[in-house]
Amino acid sequence: MSGEKPRNTFIFKNPPSIKSFASVASDKESEGPMGKYFDKCDDDPYFGEDTWEKAESRLQKTAVQIALHKAGLDASDINFMFAGDLINQCTGSTYGIRDFCIPYFGIFGACSTMAEGLLLSAMMMNAGYGDYLLNSTSSHFSTAEKQFRFPLSYGGQRTPTAQWTCTASGSIILSHEDTKPYVRGGTVGTVVDFGITDANNMGAAMAPAAADTIKKHLENTGTKPEDYDAIITGDLGEVGSKLMNELLMKEKIDIQSVHKDCGVMMFDGKKQDTHAGGSGCGCSASVLCGYFLNEMKDGNINNILFAATGALMSPMLVQQGESIPSISHLVHISNSKT
Amino acid sequence: MSGEKPRNTFIFKNPPSIKSFASVASDKESEGPMGKYFDKCDDDPYFGEDTWEKAESRLQKTAVQIALHKAGLDASDINFMFAGDLINQCTGSTYGIRDFCIPYFGIFGACSTMAEGLLLSAMMMNAGYGDYLLNSTSSHFSTAEKQFRFPLSYGGQRTPTAQWTCTASGSIILSHEDTKPYVRGGTVGTVVDFGITDANNMGAAMAPAAADTIKKHLENTGTKPEDYDAIITGDLGEVGSKLMNELLMKEKIDIQSVHKDCGVMMFDGKKQDTHAGGSGCGCSASVLCGYFLNEMKDGNINNILFAATGALMSPMLVQQGESIPSISHLVHISNSKT
Repeated sequence: MSGEKPRNTFIFKNPPSIKSFASVASDKESEGPMGKYFDKCDDDPYFGEDTWEKAESRLQKTAVQIALHKAGLDASDINFMFAGDLINQCTGSTYGIRDFCIPYFGIFGACSTMAEGLLLSAMMMNAGYGDYLLNSTSSHFSTAEKQFRFPLSYGGQRTPTAQWTCTASGSIILSHEDTKPYVRGGTVGTVVDFGITDANNMGAAMAPAAADTIKKHLENTGTKPEDYDAIITGDLGEVGSKLMNELLMKEKIDIQSVHKDCGVMMFDGKKQDTHAGGSGCGCSASVLCGYFLNEMKDGNINNILFAATGALMSPMLVQQGESIPSISHLVHISNSKT
Repeated sequence: MSGEKPRNTFIFKNPPSIKSFASVASDKESEGPMGKYFDKCDDDPYFGEDTWEKAESRLQKTAVQIALHKAGLDASDINFMFAGDLINQCTGSTYGIRDFCIPYFGIFGACSTMAEGLLLSAMMMNAGYGDYLLNSTSSHFSTAEKQFRFPLSYGGQRTPTAQWTCTASGSIILSHEDTKPYVRGGTVGTVVDFGITDANNMGAAMAPAAADTIKKHLENTGTKPEDYDAIITGDLGEVGSKLMNELLMKEKIDIQSVHKDCGVMMFDGKKQDTHAGGSGCGCSASVLCGYFLNEMKDGNINNILFAATGALMSPMLVQQGESIPSISHLVHISNSKT
């Protein structure tokens, strides 16, 4: 049914359309270079709630509401959805989407979540399951920092390799209504572990996973970096981007002229003191749904690979001396169906 | 492509076969009524590792190895897999399957994980994606208790409604090789929240989700409880099973004569002091892969609905006064393809 070449790459015969997309962010993200592209910017990092966790749920709920509104759909029109996030038990998603009563597949891919959900829902839609499928994900600086690193009130010093977890969310609705852009295919990521144990250097942990998936996708599809307007990684940041390009150059694959990283794009690192760049599920999701998909709608870019990256990092296992496994899922999005 | 009735139920035109299945458990589970059905019982709850988290990863890895061995397959034969578990960042799965290098979709459905993964992989296989797809999940008493309730060394008193998280794992490989049993279809669950806030009464939190999904599946397929040899819930336990049957009876649906609950089946409650029964992702996964699928292979039962239930419970959100949302995904497994 689907044209499949080596086991993890899929090229769709019935590429679904991205019917609508939405992005929401908070104050720091809105002050950066991406700020003007988001559908909604809210200066209140609590989003009107009384805890950080409830704030993240509200943030994701808002992104889904905007995506539904832009599509002219009700929650009851959605056949089923994929969502997940960084926070334990995926509460940003579970509590955020609870009131919509949409049949729900919970996913966990850390910061690769938007690519994982988009790939899964596009595979489902290519196969004819449903009229409208939805994806969403989110991250919040305050929920992530306290869970993965230090309590916020501790005021810990940040290392130069540290990244800034974005308070942001993205949501995408797929349909077969034949409007640009289309999801043309993708590559399922494999867990890659190069032995990084530093929870303040996520970019280095994720770089090998991104290199692995991008290499496989190019090889499996017989395409070259210059066939794309952009090859986008999720949130490698400055450190991870450099490492990924070094790894690919060793394989004689040079994507540097088309490579963009959402973590690097999100902030003005010097002005905003964000060290190696942005991170979090909401980083790549909001830059995709804020900047890239709007640029595609406007015809400024036409053909991209979106390879979000996830550090499947457990503070508990890092304390036990384990390294940080990572994964990168890749989605091919194009203004052309063929 | 797929016959779809109301948005969340799917009936497959090309039902995939369950090619192999495996179950692994520890000492307490092995001493219960299900003990003789498991592929492997290990008396060492550390499974040779030095921490509980690494033990759970080893447990899940072992279940996958046995499923591959029984299928006569290598890890490299698997197109992609779905896995997840209860522990933060799904470490049982991520670290457990890391060495296999199988393209991997991480999922989070708490104790509904085996049904979620089996439904997703069956939908994918029905659609023609891949030759062999794999699912796995696990739970461990010691990782779950310390994360969700009390440190083990605290020696907290257990309430009568409490359930015993099983140290167990299950793994299933799907193919189109046309051997019994087949995955015929299923129903995607929706998040249901009846306002339960007691982390020691998971059965009550999950009962409404199971009732909701079972009702929808029967209605959407136009089938009756007596059409099935068994309608199996995941781990409602004694308390949750009673509640679920009460909820269904209010809707004039009586499944009591065919209802089985894996949490009730796992232990001899009186002898083993397990209070309301077993729980955890590994509970329903190991009872399905240990008892039910073997009974189907032997032709003793032929047609079942497997509705695993997940309490999407976050200790953090419960501390913030939130209730416990739950979900139940349902899979129809039959010895007949039509």
